[in-house]
Amino acid sequence: MTRWEPNARARLAQAAMDLYREQGFNQTTVAEIAERAGLTERTFFRHYADKREVLFGGADDMKDALLAAVANAAESADPLTAAAAGFLAVGAALEEQRGRELAGQRQRLIAANAELRERELIKLASWASSVAETLHSRGVEEPVATLAAEVALAVFRTSFEYWTETADGPPLPDLIHESLDQLAAMHSGAPKPRIHD
Amino acid sequence: MTRWEPNARARLAQAAMDLYREQGFNQTTVAEIAERAGLTERTFFRHYADKREVLFGGADDMKDALLAAVANAAESADPLTAAAAGFLAVGAALEEQRGRELAGQRQRLIAANAELRERELIKLASWASSVAETLHSRGVEEPVATLAAEVALAVFRTSFEYWTETADGPPLPDLIHESLDQLAAMHSGAPKPRIHD
Repeated sequence: MTRWEPNARARLAQAAMDLYREQGFNQTTVAEIAERAGLTERTFFRHYADKREVLFGGADDMKDALLAAVANAAESADPLTAAAAGFLAVGAALEEQRGRELAGQRQRLIAANAELRERELIKLASWASSVAETLHSRGVEEPVATLAAEVALAVFRTSFEYWTETADGPPLPDLIHESLDQLAAMHSGAPKPRIHD
Repeated sequence: MTRWEPNARARLAQAAMDLYREQGFNQTTVAEIAERAGLTERTFFRHYADKREVLFGGADDMKDALLAAVANAAESADPLTAAAAGFLAVGAALEEQRGRELAGQRQRLIAANAELRERELIKLASWASSVAETLHSRGVEEPVATLAAEVALAVFRTSFEYWTETADGPPLPDLIHESLDQLAAMHSGAPKPRIHD
């Protein structure tokens, strides 16, 4: 085996995904992942800190892209539009770097394991609160900043789920745009609708 | 001790909350809860199935109220307004039955324990998907039904958090109404704002 392993990171990720799916996350060892990928454990640890990081690696870069896009949204953008700009950046990165199929596999794995679900939810909650802070530094007051961040996250999650479930549908950023338009349309329908009395 | 214990349910709930806070949820036994409330274990089990149910009891009634309000929203209500009607019903029930202080105590306890957080998040996710189904039975197509349900949940959660953190603020249903108005205002600001290019 040469010291230079082409696509080692991607091969390890795919081997890990396959094994997690076949036999469960808890039951899979790093040794098995390396073996399946035709690589050594040493190589695995050059790319990932542990077997969980295969699923969550890249989350910090994603968060940086998210917050940069919120901070750099047009000055005239309303809070929801600015928050959504962040999630559009995440959507573009997912579309490009991970792709629909791998993202869907990852999502189903996470859904099947309590520890991973918890970790994913903590990640998303931390995204939302950081987006709210970034909005706040743009001059948006609370509770509007948190509201905009949480609603933008809800739009993102809904679009993301739809994206992973529809093999031939539009790319994720388009779905996020569509969801934002649908949300705006709900509001413009009736003039300031109050709940039925 | 008489067989009729006044306010046994509420006394047990308060004793449980106090003990969970003082020594942690995992460390607290049913025997301790009953003792603190000046009641017997037998009485505890007449009111709650286990110590977790003290925190999650009533969730089924809450969900029934949620879905009934969505189903019964005015026929002309747009999907978000119908979904929000459900969460307004939950808000009214929380304001009346639990109150801000107890709700806040409960929330902080849940936040401090991974098992309880998981259970709470599963509850909220099941609420959102049931609201989406109810919207669907009102003729709302996917993915709009899920979008409206998730956004309404985000509005509810943001309002709820604000409610528990502000001792003298408006009642929860008013906060939900305010959040909905704030969200509508974000959309009406710029005409169909697109994210900056």
